[in-house]
Amino acid sequence: MDTDGQDLAAMLYGRRDLRIEHIERGDVGPDQVRVEMHGVSLCGSDLHYYADGRNGSNTLTQPTVLGHEGFGRIVEVGADINADRVGDRVAVEPTVPAPHSPLGLRGHYNVDPSVVCFGSPPNNGLLRGSVVMPAAFAHSLPDAVTDDVAALIEPLAVATWAVSRAGSVLGKRILITGAGPIGLLVLQTVLALGAREVTITDVSQARLDAAVELGATTAVLSGGDAIEFGPADTAFDCSGNPGAIAAAARSLGPAGVLALVGVPGRQEAEFPISLVQRWELDIRGCFRYGPDAFAQAIGLAARGRVDLHSLVTSRYPLSESAAALEAALSDPTQLKIVIETAAQNSEEDR
Amino acid sequence: MDTDGQDLAAMLYGRRDLRIEHIERGDVGPDQVRVEMHGVSLCGSDLHYYADGRNGSNTLTQPTVLGHEGFGRIVEVGADINADRVGDRVAVEPTVPAPHSPLGLRGHYNVDPSVVCFGSPPNNGLLRGSVVMPAAFAHSLPDAVTDDVAALIEPLAVATWAVSRAGSVLGKRILITGAGPIGLLVLQTVLALGAREVTITDVSQARLDAAVELGATTAVLSGGDAIEFGPADTAFDCSGNPGAIAAAARSLGPAGVLALVGVPGRQEAEFPISLVQRWELDIRGCFRYGPDAFAQAIGLAARGRVDLHSLVTSRYPLSESAAALEAALSDPTQLKIVIETAAQNSEEDR
Amino acid sequence: MDTDGQDLAAMLYGRRDLRIEHIERGDVGPDQVRVEMHGVSLCGSDLHYYADGRNGSNTLTQPTVLGHEGFGRIVEVGADINADRVGDRVAVEPTVPAPHSPLGLRGHYNVDPSVVCFGSPPNNGLLRGSVVMPAAFAHSLPDAVTDDVAALIEPLAVATWAVSRAGSVLGKRILITGAGPIGLLVLQTVLALGAREVTITDVSQARLDAAVELGATTAVLSGGDAIEFGPADTAFDCSGNPGAIAAAARSLGPAGVLALVGVPGRQEAEFPISLVQRWELDIRGCFRYGPDAFAQAIGLAARGRVDLHSLVTSRYPLSESAAALEAALSDPTQLKIVIETAAQNSEEDR
Amino acid sequence: MDTDGQDLAAMLYGRRDLRIEHIERGDVGPDQVRVEMHGVSLCGSDLHYYADGRNGSNTLTQPTVLGHEGFGRIVEVGADINADRVGDRVAVEPTVPAPHSPLGLRGHYNVDPSVVCFGSPPNNGLLRGSVVMPAAFAHSLPDAVTDDVAALIEPLAVATWAVSRAGSVLGKRILITGAGPIGLLVLQTVLALGAREVTITDVSQARLDAAVELGATTAVLSGGDAIEFGPADTAFDCSGNPGAIAAAARSLGPAGVLALVGVPGRQEAEFPISLVQRWELDIRGCFRYGPDAFAQAIGLAARGRVDLHSLVTSRYPLSESAAALEAALSDPTQLKIVIETAAQNSEEDR
Repeated sequence: MDTDGQDLAAMLYGRRDLRIEHIERGDVGPDQVRVEMHGVSLCGSDLHYYADGRNGSNTLTQPTVLGHEGFGRIVEVGADINADRVGDRVAVEPTVPAPHSPLGLRGHYNVDPSVVCFGSPPNNGLLRGSVVMPAAFAHSLPDAVTDDVAALIEPLAVATWAVSRAGSVLGKRILITGAGPIGLLVLQTVLALGAREVTITDVSQARLDAAVELGATTAVLSGGDAIEFGPADTAFDCSGNPGAIAAAARSLGPAGVLALVGVPGRQEAEFPISLVQRWELDIRGCFRYGPDAFAQAIGLAARGRVDLHSLVTSRYPLSESAAALEAALSDPTQLKIVIETAAQNSEEDR
Repeated sequence: MDTDGQDLAAMLYGRRDLRIEHIERGDVGPDQVRVEMHGVSLCGSDLHYYADGRNGSNTLTQPTVLGHEGFGRIVEVGADINADRVGDRVAVEPTVPAPHSPLGLRGHYNVDPSVVCFGSPPNNGLLRGSVVMPAAFAHSLPDAVTDDVAALIEPLAVATWAVSRAGSVLGKRILITGAGPIGLLVLQTVLALGAREVTITDVSQARLDAAVELGATTAVLSGGDAIEFGPADTAFDCSGNPGAIAAAARSLGPAGVLALVGVPGRQEAEFPISLVQRWELDIRGCFRYGPDAFAQAIGLAARGRVDLHSLVTSRYPLSESAAALEAALSDPTQLKIVIETAAQNSEEDR
Repeated sequence: MDTDGQDLAAMLYGRRDLRIEHIERGDVGPDQVRVEMHGVSLCGSDLHYYADGRNGSNTLTQPTVLGHEGFGRIVEVGADINADRVGDRVAVEPTVPAPHSPLGLRGHYNVDPSVVCFGSPPNNGLLRGSVVMPAAFAHSLPDAVTDDVAALIEPLAVATWAVSRAGSVLGKRILITGAGPIGLLVLQTVLALGAREVTITDVSQARLDAAVELGATTAVLSGGDAIEFGPADTAFDCSGNPGAIAAAARSLGPAGVLALVGVPGRQEAEFPISLVQRWELDIRGCFRYGPDAFAQAIGLAARGRVDLHSLVTSRYPLSESAAALEAALSDPTQLKIVIETAAQNSEEDR
Repeated sequence: MDTDGQDLAAMLYGRRDLRIEHIERGDVGPDQVRVEMHGVSLCGSDLHYYADGRNGSNTLTQPTVLGHEGFGRIVEVGADINADRVGDRVAVEPTVPAPHSPLGLRGHYNVDPSVVCFGSPPNNGLLRGSVVMPAAFAHSLPDAVTDDVAALIEPLAVATWAVSRAGSVLGKRILITGAGPIGLLVLQTVLALGAREVTITDVSQARLDAAVELGATTAVLSGGDAIEFGPADTAFDCSGNPGAIAAAARSLGPAGVLALVGVPGRQEAEFPISLVQRWELDIRGCFRYGPDAFAQAIGLAARGRVDLHSLVTSRYPLSESAAALEAALSDPTQLKIVIETAAQNSEEDR
């Protein structure tokens, strides 16, 4: 943060038009905190906005700060928040529902239509010097979660939430379709939680090699829809590929569970509805992260139960955010790229 | 039952070749009972076997007694069964898993591959003078469940099981696609259990009229895939129509539940997987009936909470089973036809 | 409501010192509504505050408006609330958690320590001309819930929540210990939701007679701890009597569920922990009402599935609130007394 | 096993009267297997029978073979069992319900009154050359579960079942009261499954030292009922001490869960029922092991996620079973004693 009430931010103006410029800091409301951002990792949706000006049905219509996977340090608290929290290192849960939202009160805040997500245009994101947010969504980090991986708590929370939705994996045979960053985090989470065997599929041998390195019992190079496995007790689709989703459903044994984690590449697709009915399969959508997911992710990371370091393949300063996005787009070997927002700001700030 | 160890039975030899003939009664094992059959109602699968010699992937390969929706009276018990059960009127749960089957021990006996179902070729069914079965699957009926509707406990158990799978309906907005007998029973069950509003769709106005008579708040004549409703909290597909299934999924609000009760008419079909992921929908297959479903059905019927009488549109004696099947095939206004197995046998027997 | 920004209210100053006086109306915040109160029913906790100046561990330390079971009409909405809600008749859910409270985000808002309850000193309650509250906790009422019973939606929500916590009652044998207003509402709720048999116990024959009138299958006059029943599948303690609670636990069959709804009369008591362990009983506390409970209660009442009228034994105007409280204290045949707040205010107001 | 149809067995005739003698082998029924026993570990209930002639309410009334924690090798299969299973190393699940038992069909076979348990008089147990049992309860062991610890799969299944009953522990604060063998196994299981912090209490410092060695974050020497902790999200009582059980309940935060694993030392005891109601605590009994518990235990052990070796403090041959029982009774530093049944028998047999 700089001293005159402004922060630097990576603002997207249009396709491949990202500018580093100053923006006003907001005021801190009574139940809010200001978090000085230290690091933000890039996600597929950031790449879509940068390259295409849109992600799914959401379109960039005004300049917007990108970024939603971030961590930092609380530097200011609102009137209703305990001042002891100043100084806390925190992971940002970037999707915030309206207070007392109906689905929130029922334990489903993440799918309440009122949710606002940092970095989803037109809402500004985390690639900036500081951010103001509700204290309840700034999750304190123990020292054991080090700065170099703390930005990855967010994607890890996607994985812990998916496993919460899918139910216990202890002693079970698991199939994961898709070995991108989310697939590799789901893989590590189910292994940490006692899965008996994990088969993982992808179209990239490099990603499968990474999966085997992280403990997958079987890795299968696949065109997505051609190969079937099983019987699995529980499957996680982390590809979004409709063919892989259908294959995952076909791989399940009776009473099996399929968690849809990846964002499907098409609105509708051929799906084995007959098997779902005949074998009482459960198909469960998973969207971002709901109750407890960040606490679970922080717990796994703090106890060293997952390897986040090996997923970070590059680091860039905030000033080179565009170069970071270009690298992510052009280099298929990149898993997670972290943009270090703090270094740049702290030069000015301290 | 007649006196020489044989019963009359309605045996299917091939397409539209149903013969009434004598078959041997089996012996009663230690944990079994013999049930003198009193009534059997016909189901869509009976019609498929009769008309086509097959139902889905299961084909008639040897002469088989049809029928799986039945009730009767215990006339003999095995060595390990309390003799007090002799004389009990019982509804037959016709799908029996192997003892100690793995999925059975986990509370999923209905989808254990070991399950044997009465009346699914080559297993003989209930259209006969008596049947030998495990005592645990012969559910005693209170007097309040009268003979004229007792055969319908089985389809009602399909409905109670579907609602068990779908979760509480109290105070919820419900969509039911398909107003055949199962749809009408699901309708009555969700109304009995406190649904706030129930919309039902079908391609037949006559069926919709019956649904409104039974309490549906809205009835929509539909081509199945053209119209969408909602938002619903919970949907039950009782049509098996792939278009209706997809429309039901599209009708759900966030965190909604879709129970697939009808047997899908195709192995695979276009399905809105994207909505499932984005809104954390739960899609749950429902196959026959699992734990507690018969006890629940009997409870609803005994307390007069559902109207089974209006679903019975014709009655035939066992000797006219073929005529009953022909009527069911040719007359779209038929809902449930009951074959009275007892009358005929008791002439010989008593 | 009167015209000068003040309302009449029933303010408790100390034991048996209730005064009707004017208080300031609050302003309506952006996500709030003002509800003109029409009726408030009295509850045991109101009686404790009135007679003893305390309820459990909570003590009256400053003058406080009593009342938390109420309904009324929205007369003003905040900036963020749809103006269409003006005119809605609403039931007040009186326990409001802090926005984004940790337990609230996890679906347990009712036990979040941040919860503030109308009418629990020092928080003013509903026995007043109007109240300002978050819109999300003002539940719109359909016409079918008439004014004469609308105040009883709150105690009915206690019952629907208890049943939510206890799980499906369809086809089950139920025991209810305690036939006061809450016990009678739990009785009606489990009957509406398909319970097979309901045994109810109390120390008052008059209350048991009311229970039989409402459908209980068995009513047992009991000293609370002497008699045992069973086996029951699910038990609800609505007495708070430690002996009855222990007897209820002893009445359960294997894997049975005991819901504790009544406020226990002692902090600790003899309890059959050995049976809990040996038979895998589940003991579940029930506190007020959580997610969906009001919607469920409104649904049951709107569809005529419960008889609330017979529970209302007297009505008083706001100006005679003290007489109403005295009647409740002295007359054991009173079930629910409703104080009509609207009549008095509307004289001044319209 | 010896060659003439008889096995050696450790038969209890009365208090401290254990005799090694030959007993007849049973025949193998169609769905059964014969398991040549290789190792059996001793449990508190074995000690009670040996020292007192009774355990809880069950009394030794005829000579009975002791032992229920065992493993071995399948040497013969019944007609309906795949012959490939011959040679499998298996852990014995010793509690077998009647086929199609009502609670078994509902997923609660472990609390079905029909359950017969090996080694609970008058049912003979596993301290013998071989045992005949239903194939479904003989759980095949991968090589990674070595012979020296395979007998401990049974107590580990007690722990995995308790955690199944208690729900996800990922990221949670856990309290365990009692650091005996079961407490230490629950400790290891919750750590393996991602608990954030684990506090454990016991009256023995030696046991607490073992707990810290295995990863407990806090260990508290306690008289059982004097000290309270918290707030915990989930507590497991593994002591059976009524004071510790009450203290565990008092330690929980809102919506907390207390699993009762230890066998309570008294039928009834003072218990904070008021807290259960006020904070919506869940108290859940845990009895032996239900669905999936053995598969889960085998999975944890096979993947090296728990340290079973350090729990085995002594080994004895079958012929010295009495000495083993005496050692267990007299030496408080003993955790688990394993009796090696195989060595002795194989001398005669091969």
